[in-house]
Amino acid sequence: MNFLEERILKDGLVKPGNVLKVDSFLNHQMDIALMDEIGKAFYMRFKDKPITKVLTIEASGIAIAYPVARCFNVPLVFAKKSKSVNIDGDMYVATVESFTHKNVNQVIVSKKFLSEDDHVLIIDDFLANGCALQGLISIAEDAGATVEGIGIAIEKGFQIGGTVIRNLGSPLESLANVDAMDAEKGTVTFRKQ
Amino acid sequence: MNFLEERILKDGLVKPGNVLKVDSFLNHQMDIALMDEIGKAFYMRFKDKPITKVLTIEASGIAIAYPVARCFNVPLVFAKKSKSVNIDGDMYVATVESFTHKNVNQVIVSKKFLSEDDHVLIIDDFLANGCALQGLISIAEDAGATVEGIGIAIEKGFQIGGTVIRNLGSPLESLANVDAMDAEKGTVTFRKQ
Repeated sequence: MNFLEERILKDGLVKPGNVLKVDSFLNHQMDIALMDEIGKAFYMRFKDKPITKVLTIEASGIAIAYPVARCFNVPLVFAKKSKSVNIDGDMYVATVESFTHKNVNQVIVSKKFLSEDDHVLIIDDFLANGCALQGLISIAEDAGATVEGIGIAIEKGFQIGGTVIRNLGSPLESLANVDAMDAEKGTVTFRKQ
Repeated sequence: MNFLEERILKDGLVKPGNVLKVDSFLNHQMDIALMDEIGKAFYMRFKDKPITKVLTIEASGIAIAYPVARCFNVPLVFAKKSKSVNIDGDMYVATVESFTHKNVNQVIVSKKFLSEDDHVLIIDDFLANGCALQGLISIAEDAGATVEGIGIAIEKGFQIGGTVIRNLGSPLESLANVDAMDAEKGTVTFRKQ
């Protein structure tokens, strides 16, 4: 069992509806030492790739992607979820449905920050149905960039996203892959890595 | 002139309507080495305070607050801008109007992550009209926490926010304070610190 799986067992909360709450250390309040460790873990898994940019999506993805970009010494680009009046018209756009928030967002990245010269490592905190990741991959492909890999902190292995994303062809690494949760017993079972 | 002011002059873009675009290094694509330097600068300014939590607001605030929390070795808490189905009912709420996005948001922080024992350093990337900051201060006060200071990367000194927030009483430090911008000439003038 790795450091993230141990932390999930210690501080994660299982709620009805297959909700895993990790908001005390990962995606509302963040334990920065844990985040730095996550950054190093992804660096170890992808350090042989010629990464030029780390790409994530707001908001909680930023805190996972920051230490990864730091390890690779490359810029961090985060996709935004809705059109801002401060953003130029010249951008890549993908339409993404959020399972969590029950809505549809435009995911956007300025064309200035991704190009065909880029080798992108995509990072996010959760993978469930994979829609947000599909949006990020679509944007990287629109830019002509190479998606060298995808790093996920927590994958819900019992949902469809992991299969959908792996079928798209880029190497996907999740630090913790949840096979099953039981809200009544409060238990989490991880897939063996 | 400090490192952030120099970077703004080098890579910032002035647009009509007093818009300062710093999206190539600060709030869409992030230069992590610059962010780390910002973190150290805020640490130097507030290191004598007994900080227990760094508080910011999604999304771009997270990338400024991360290196600050890292320097202080304390958790980072970010306020969310709308009610998520994954968030419990037990939370602090403030209503905030966004000048940039022309809308009104509920800003929320779970009651689990702020208490009367906390000494909070509030961090954000921009201060213009100060509404987002007022929301964060209001939430910290609702929690009974002490706001030990407020750190802002870029203050628009010609807008009302700095005055409004300083009148609330907590020490406010901005690394770059923009006195004037000229979109035609592309110039930015900083207030002397």
